[in-house]
Amino acid sequence: MLNTIDGFIIDLDGTVYKGATAIAGAGETIDYLRSIGKRIVFLSNRGNISRAMCRDKLAAMHIHVPEDEIILSSTVTARYLMQRHPGCKAWALGDPGLRDELAAAGVQLAEKPEEADWVVITLHETLTYRELNQAFKAVRNGARIIATNDDKTFPGDEGDSIDVAGMIGAIVASTGQEVEVVIGKPSAHMSEAALSVLGLPPERCMIIGDSLMSDIRLGKRSGIRTALVLSGSVTRDELDAVMDKPDCVWESIGDLKMLLSRNEEIA
Amino acid sequence: MLNTIDGFIIDLDGTVYKGATAIAGAGETIDYLRSIGKRIVFLSNRGNISRAMCRDKLAAMHIHVPEDEIILSSTVTARYLMQRHPGCKAWALGDPGLRDELAAAGVQLAEKPEEADWVVITLHETLTYRELNQAFKAVRNGARIIATNDDKTFPGDEGDSIDVAGMIGAIVASTGQEVEVVIGKPSAHMSEAALSVLGLPPERCMIIGDSLMSDIRLGKRSGIRTALVLSGSVTRDELDAVMDKPDCVWESIGDLKMLLSRNEEIA
Repeated sequence: MLNTIDGFIIDLDGTVYKGATAIAGAGETIDYLRSIGKRIVFLSNRGNISRAMCRDKLAAMHIHVPEDEIILSSTVTARYLMQRHPGCKAWALGDPGLRDELAAAGVQLAEKPEEADWVVITLHETLTYRELNQAFKAVRNGARIIATNDDKTFPGDEGDSIDVAGMIGAIVASTGQEVEVVIGKPSAHMSEAALSVLGLPPERCMIIGDSLMSDIRLGKRSGIRTALVLSGSVTRDELDAVMDKPDCVWESIGDLKMLLSRNEEIA
Repeated sequence: MLNTIDGFIIDLDGTVYKGATAIAGAGETIDYLRSIGKRIVFLSNRGNISRAMCRDKLAAMHIHVPEDEIILSSTVTARYLMQRHPGCKAWALGDPGLRDELAAAGVQLAEKPEEADWVVITLHETLTYRELNQAFKAVRNGARIIATNDDKTFPGDEGDSIDVAGMIGAIVASTGQEVEVVIGKPSAHMSEAALSVLGLPPERCMIIGDSLMSDIRLGKRSGIRTALVLSGSVTRDELDAVMDKPDCVWESIGDLKMLLSRNEEIA
């Protein structure tokens, strides 16, 4: 089956790296995929960094990826606003990388909360009360809410940590306004962006990731083959409880190189 | 009717002061009530300050009130934990005043989030991501959630600002755990605490406050007469929309002195 796959959509956190450390075999697999002519795109729910920051982070692990092969939920959120709400003013509640990515795509950033048409919410690891209050004021003044993703938790340096769902919950509970759009996996906004970069139909692609909820679900919804890696948050026990299994289950992305090179030898 | 009232339950924010400024006539009315032998208790949904801090704040406005006439939602939360869950360990998500009030009542504070039996949530005007994450970890490790109150907004120095509901929303949305107890007005925990300090039955008391949702609703629920003051957040238009009107509507608490002294003259 792997021989029919021409494009790989690869998750980052838990799949290519964990924290600041590359997962063993990730770099070699990526190099190997390129050497045999496979197309690659990296697809992450991270909305609090820019593509430039992500490229630099990968380079520090000796994984060299051009910016246009990286798609973050911040990237897709910025494009969504540019395409569907051209000329809108955005207020960012999130780490500085979100603002960089919005600005890079041409989204206008509001100077005051009261001027915003949209509040964009992502993970904010340097959150303060003042910033929470500014986003609150923007929404009370009529700004609509878009979230880069709505993950509840992510594996931080000190264990599982509060993710975007916390920032969203604060604003929704205090304003009574709901989130109108969630961009991140498993939403089709993400698969469409990935397939568009790959230039391939879904049936010729495979998504590789460590999350049943975002990566595997996205693949199932979009007609893209799925490979779950156990290098991230999911254990075999959790996998056993799932009805709709991924097409492949690997210890890590390193398994892919082994499987493909074995196929090559047989051919 | 005012002649039948022996005890006054007086709200603070919007009723006695706004920000750091006393409302005109508040100090004189409180002095007058004492001079004619009325009993007084101050009842506030503020959970992020201690009674000592509140006493000092009032004193700075030349309003002198003993600590035991001040009941804050932090005070009642601390008593609730001491009475219903003796020996429990609490983790505070809120400004330092909450921790002071918990400790003053004898509630044990957990040294690590993972050790907590309860997470106590209140307004946190100096909130950081790290503190949010610690409360998240406590709840993920099994701590139950109690909130001093669940107000959505309070009148801050820069206009309406995000209140406890924001802090609660962040934890509830990211952990999937609900709040088990909310102490603040209009909950009966607050009226019971106030009546106990006054030593009077509800029918001989009146609650004076600026909030339809917390002060007036508490009075209606508890059989306590109600006076709405328009010195806070409610306008006459909002009042017109309410079915169950307060017993009295005054421009400010200053009206009470005028009404009582007129009665005295007639008598």
